[in-house]
Amino acid sequence: MAKSIKTIGVMTSGGDSPGMNAAIRAVVRACAYYGIRCVGFYRGYQGMIEGDYTEMTARSVQNIISKGGTILKSARSEEFRTKKGREKAAAQLKEIEVDAMVLIGGDGTFTGGRIFSKEYEIPVIGVPGTIDNDIAGTNFTIGYDTALNTVVDAIDKIRDTASSHNRLFFVEVMGRDAGFIALNSGVGAGAEEILIPEEDLGLERLLESLKRSKRSGKSSSIVVVSEGDKTGKNVYELADYVTEHLPDYDVRVTVLGHMQRGGKPSCFDRTLASRLCVKAVELLLDGKENLMVGLVNNQVTTSEFDKDFKEGHGINKELLRISDILSV
Amino acid sequence: MAKSIKTIGVMTSGGDSPGMNAAIRAVVRACAYYGIRCVGFYRGYQGMIEGDYTEMTARSVQNIISKGGTILKSARSEEFRTKKGREKAAAQLKEIEVDAMVLIGGDGTFTGGRIFSKEYEIPVIGVPGTIDNDIAGTNFTIGYDTALNTVVDAIDKIRDTASSHNRLFFVEVMGRDAGFIALNSGVGAGAEEILIPEEDLGLERLLESLKRSKRSGKSSSIVVVSEGDKTGKNVYELADYVTEHLPDYDVRVTVLGHMQRGGKPSCFDRTLASRLCVKAVELLLDGKENLMVGLVNNQVTTSEFDKDFKEGHGINKELLRISDILSV
Amino acid sequence: MAKSIKTIGVMTSGGDSPGMNAAIRAVVRACAYYGIRCVGFYRGYQGMIEGDYTEMTARSVQNIISKGGTILKSARSEEFRTKKGREKAAAQLKEIEVDAMVLIGGDGTFTGGRIFSKEYEIPVIGVPGTIDNDIAGTNFTIGYDTALNTVVDAIDKIRDTASSHNRLFFVEVMGRDAGFIALNSGVGAGAEEILIPEEDLGLERLLESLKRSKRSGKSSSIVVVSEGDKTGKNVYELADYVTEHLPDYDVRVTVLGHMQRGGKPSCFDRTLASRLCVKAVELLLDGKENLMVGLVNNQVTTSEFDKDFKEGHGINKELLRISDILSV
Amino acid sequence: MAKSIKTIGVMTSGGDSPGMNAAIRAVVRACAYYGIRCVGFYRGYQGMIEGDYTEMTARSVQNIISKGGTILKSARSEEFRTKKGREKAAAQLKEIEVDAMVLIGGDGTFTGGRIFSKEYEIPVIGVPGTIDNDIAGTNFTIGYDTALNTVVDAIDKIRDTASSHNRLFFVEVMGRDAGFIALNSGVGAGAEEILIPEEDLGLERLLESLKRSKRSGKSSSIVVVSEGDKTGKNVYELADYVTEHLPDYDVRVTVLGHMQRGGKPSCFDRTLASRLCVKAVELLLDGKENLMVGLVNNQVTTSEFDKDFKEGHGINKELLRISDILSV
Repeated sequence: MAKSIKTIGVMTSGGDSPGMNAAIRAVVRACAYYGIRCVGFYRGYQGMIEGDYTEMTARSVQNIISKGGTILKSARSEEFRTKKGREKAAAQLKEIEVDAMVLIGGDGTFTGGRIFSKEYEIPVIGVPGTIDNDIAGTNFTIGYDTALNTVVDAIDKIRDTASSHNRLFFVEVMGRDAGFIALNSGVGAGAEEILIPEEDLGLERLLESLKRSKRSGKSSSIVVVSEGDKTGKNVYELADYVTEHLPDYDVRVTVLGHMQRGGKPSCFDRTLASRLCVKAVELLLDGKENLMVGLVNNQVTTSEFDKDFKEGHGINKELLRISDILSV
Repeated sequence: MAKSIKTIGVMTSGGDSPGMNAAIRAVVRACAYYGIRCVGFYRGYQGMIEGDYTEMTARSVQNIISKGGTILKSARSEEFRTKKGREKAAAQLKEIEVDAMVLIGGDGTFTGGRIFSKEYEIPVIGVPGTIDNDIAGTNFTIGYDTALNTVVDAIDKIRDTASSHNRLFFVEVMGRDAGFIALNSGVGAGAEEILIPEEDLGLERLLESLKRSKRSGKSSSIVVVSEGDKTGKNVYELADYVTEHLPDYDVRVTVLGHMQRGGKPSCFDRTLASRLCVKAVELLLDGKENLMVGLVNNQVTTSEFDKDFKEGHGINKELLRISDILSV
Repeated sequence: MAKSIKTIGVMTSGGDSPGMNAAIRAVVRACAYYGIRCVGFYRGYQGMIEGDYTEMTARSVQNIISKGGTILKSARSEEFRTKKGREKAAAQLKEIEVDAMVLIGGDGTFTGGRIFSKEYEIPVIGVPGTIDNDIAGTNFTIGYDTALNTVVDAIDKIRDTASSHNRLFFVEVMGRDAGFIALNSGVGAGAEEILIPEEDLGLERLLESLKRSKRSGKSSSIVVVSEGDKTGKNVYELADYVTEHLPDYDVRVTVLGHMQRGGKPSCFDRTLASRLCVKAVELLLDGKENLMVGLVNNQVTTSEFDKDFKEGHGINKELLRISDILSV
Repeated sequence: MAKSIKTIGVMTSGGDSPGMNAAIRAVVRACAYYGIRCVGFYRGYQGMIEGDYTEMTARSVQNIISKGGTILKSARSEEFRTKKGREKAAAQLKEIEVDAMVLIGGDGTFTGGRIFSKEYEIPVIGVPGTIDNDIAGTNFTIGYDTALNTVVDAIDKIRDTASSHNRLFFVEVMGRDAGFIALNSGVGAGAEEILIPEEDLGLERLLESLKRSKRSGKSSSIVVVSEGDKTGKNVYELADYVTEHLPDYDVRVTVLGHMQRGGKPSCFDRTLASRLCVKAVELLLDGKENLMVGLVNNQVTTSEFDKDFKEGHGINKELLRISDILSV
């Protein structure tokens, strides 16, 4: 990139996650620190298409590090999937004199950004912001740690009432394609069983496990179910199935839903967002482009933007084993 | 009551609520303080029927004041509704030499206790422990304040993501017969609309309100719905109805479910439980019986046990008005 | 008050408390609802003196109900204690065309407001906002409930480590003149002893109580100390005194400090703030003036502004008794 | 190790940390899973010396994964530093038929364990449990993540009141020899300055930074100070120094103290504890000994027990740089 960077744009896109504000703040403050202009686009690619943006200074991001959600709002833009949409966005960037973009979001965001960057030669850096943790090239995505704490906190509450009534609860957590949230929160909450999309343990095994759990004298059982689990049944059907086959169980269902996306970010997510986004700005200023920043082995690293963002970032099978051992 | 009290039994019954452990602790410690024996029955009336109990000393309740749930567990007992069941329970109390009972629960618990007390001349004191706050004779029931904070905390999280995406959320909270939780948490969370069983505002009004809310520039809308709201539609049907009639809204549903029953009790619930249960023991020692303790105007009071426990304890209409004004 | 109210001013003054933002929001939204203008003054009386204010609409207070602190900031104004200072403030109100004021704060705020209101015939309504709960005419002040939860949450954490090490902790909480926070949080946290300014139990009694506590097999002890306790010793001196007289105790001190003023307001404080401030606006519109709004017996009430704001609002001696019984 | 392992002992030692209970649970459950006996010693090495222990089964650790503190209690044992003390401990292990130990604690614990293991040929595995994160061979110690969240949560509250009053706060956090907590929580809380033992930035630089912060229009400033910072001044002296040199600042101090050690462990700490302790048991069963388990690059690893536990585990200088950039 020969052109020197005078203005960096920033946006958040896709499902929002806690820590996105900390990420925005870090981009804005790093720009201020290095003396360049920063503009924030609203609602992800849609705001770029519409030229819906705001000038951002160090003071624009005061006290947002602790806030959930994203002050730039987020959206999925159908229009940006079209050649026409991206053309508009590129024109807007030119008009507003934005030289490079920091894209905060998940793999959908990055896929769009990669195409856009190639078509219009606009340097972009991707920052992984999603609660799902399903992005290759980083050990952790921004928002994942907070979501885990939110889920564990909710299951702790459910455990209180489950134990008081000797009940079995099915708790559905987010993660349509990836079992990261279910697996880690399940281990963290001491769940008796964890059902994830990556592995089909079969309904028979679930019934066996629940029976064993009851025999061993447990006062309650929690089964954490990922949205997209492989049994092919949704959480309510699962509950019905178990009620039918284990009639002496008192079964209940809770779907945690969108509260998993909100809340004050944990220290981990704030620090992660801060480190990744300062790096993103510095990379652009350093003439780098089309990279994703990530945290690997507790170091900020970069990976190619031209990759399958999901490949090779499988769930930790060790954790499934740990879960089996600990629910003895 | 001529007979002097040498042993007091305590149990928790019905839906569990945060603060029940603080209540048990206060009964046990008050007995220890006054030098009398205390036994705890497990699973409410069912434990009385089965003679499933434990001797309790000051140390048995160490560090439970901060714990959710109930260490004595809770249940609804079908058997206790039968003459036969109550007879067994009375025989057990005689066998174990329990002279009087402190009953912690809601109106179902009290109704059973009243019949039992009359049939077998066993002095009982009722302590209102339920998240629903639907008991006449007290301004607050144990667990209600904590449940409100749990709900408001969850809605705050949902608001984060709702605001980031300009969405409309329907959030269903507990309260099959009573709108206390919906109404107070709705005002506390700044909900745009609150639907409760006590008042049918009609679906037309809801649509109007949502349209007005959008016109006024709100970035998100939250509608808090009580389980038993009067529209006759459940929360998913409501969401479908609104989606159909207001197609430019992006509608989502969250059912908060059983997490509302758990969690560490708030300071308010702990103090309330402590005050009510010390009083319960002192009343029994003082020869009183068949009363419910409650908090009225910040003072511990008693009310007759021979009453309709729901009568006259209506929701605060002023709050509905406040909600209308504040969602302007 | 013959003059009709077209503009209401609002400010927060004195020590800030959680729920002040919910209070500001309610004043602003109530004004919007009734179609009158609302202006917010920054930094309490100082902003009135300097004419440092902002026009407030329903949207200015979006999403602040859940935020700690006060967006209008708070301060103690020396200048307002002078005739000259109040004169300037009155001139500013005239200039800005503010017809009446809602004053959110504690007794210092109200004392200043009363003098000002009389001198310049400006209608004011006081809203009790302080964590100290030391205001006559209301059962609860805005922020008190949240502060109690903050304190209890901190003591729960301290209890974890105290129990792990069999330690004795002195925990100092806020309340220079009033023991409300110490007393209620102490009962809520299950403290072994509570020292408050209203009652001098003597150091001898403290030593006796701690010895008894150890004999009874407790694994840890927590003594909650109000800033202004009557022993005449500060918390560090107390710790030294106990260490000297009970050498086999492992004593530690924590001063909770200003975190007690912050944090997300509890549902109770948000609802309280909402109810009191809608009423404050309605009273002014109804021609009332020089009243304080309060919550008594769960109803919004008013009391005269011409009173001793502390008189008759003593701490609950029953709670001290409860604490003694429960720390058995 | 030729001898097969039939019984594993577990203990927690040194300063307690959140997640120690999750660690104990994992040791106990892994033993149950592999069909071997597990005993828990109370108060670390002191319990080993005194033979103060309990048999532990899968049910002994029910519902403790979410609890702060340690059910086995912790202590620092002077007696274990003596040859005589260790001799007693070895005799007790023989008597109780404990074949190997899992030691949960920090570097003091490990140093003692290494000597003991050599003297008496008892296989031990160390598990890093301390909030300080100052152990080489692992990216994270158990309790560190929770402590960071506790600190950030407290500073968020302090920020509320600091912003409301335009104040400067000095917040002292734990970490006598290591600045990990200060540095990471400082970045997470958006602190304006961070003072740590590893680096002496000088008082002049602090004053400059605070002046710049004020000029840039910040409404409040937070300086996070590690217990053992290099300026040679404690936090109160620092505050006095700044008050003297920057008289227009309104300065306050909060010492967070022992609440940093308590509280419910975060999901991260629970999962970390679970993974490390299952591995510890499996290593012993596999004939391995005198290793420390740790998490490196998100994988469970082992490192030699014969090392300097602090060497090479320096703080992340990058974070200091990030902090400078972000407090612009």
